[in-house]
Amino acid sequence: MSELAERECVPCRGGVPPLKGEQIQTLLSQLADWEVVREHHLRKQYKFGNFREALEFVNQVGELAEAQGHHPDISFGWGQAEITIWTHKIDGLTESDFVLAAKIDKL
Amino acid sequence: MSELAERECVPCRGGVPPLKGEQIQTLLSQLADWEVVREHHLRKQYKFGNFREALEFVNQVGELAEAQGHHPDISFGWGQAEITIWTHKIDGLTESDFVLAAKIDKL
Repeated sequence: MSELAERECVPCRGGVPPLKGEQIQTLLSQLADWEVVREHHLRKQYKFGNFREALEFVNQVGELAEAQGHHPDISFGWGQAEITIWTHKIDGLTESDFVLAAKIDKL
Repeated sequence: MSELAERECVPCRGGVPPLKGEQIQTLLSQLADWEVVREHHLRKQYKFGNFREALEFVNQVGELAEAQGHHPDISFGWGQAEITIWTHKIDGLTESDFVLAAKIDKL
């Protein structure tokens, strides 16, 4: 099995069930410090030394999101950022969400 | 009185009380579509046509924040962004928060 971060986000056209239980745990175990909230979305907080560093990180995530065609929600401010990822089309988690999370951690 | 957007954000060193009631309403009336939440922070939502436009707006706000030395919290995703402004030092609102809001709307 290839590493999560080496895979590509696949556009979700709906019609597939969101990942649950064991499926989520297996993928989550391949990520560092991400949490799954209500089996609905992935979330991770990042700390930075100032506002500029947070903004630069957000831009890197933004470019990655555009390249993958998969867009997280991003919140940030002085010294911190929070990334939230889920698949809006099915209002839940798909493998692509974990792939995007792995790619963000490789930035 | 100069327009809000023409003023500069003044560093808050604490020791001043947060703005209340009438003071807030007078300043808020000079802004467009911002809301004051619990007399504690300013908030405004923006809509965009895609993720890229939201990211570009966020970068403009980020550069403005660095120039003013006053940093809002920024949340954004595909087609939308939300800006939240308050003065952390006094855990409430100062005139500088309204100045930053006015400057954001002039971007």
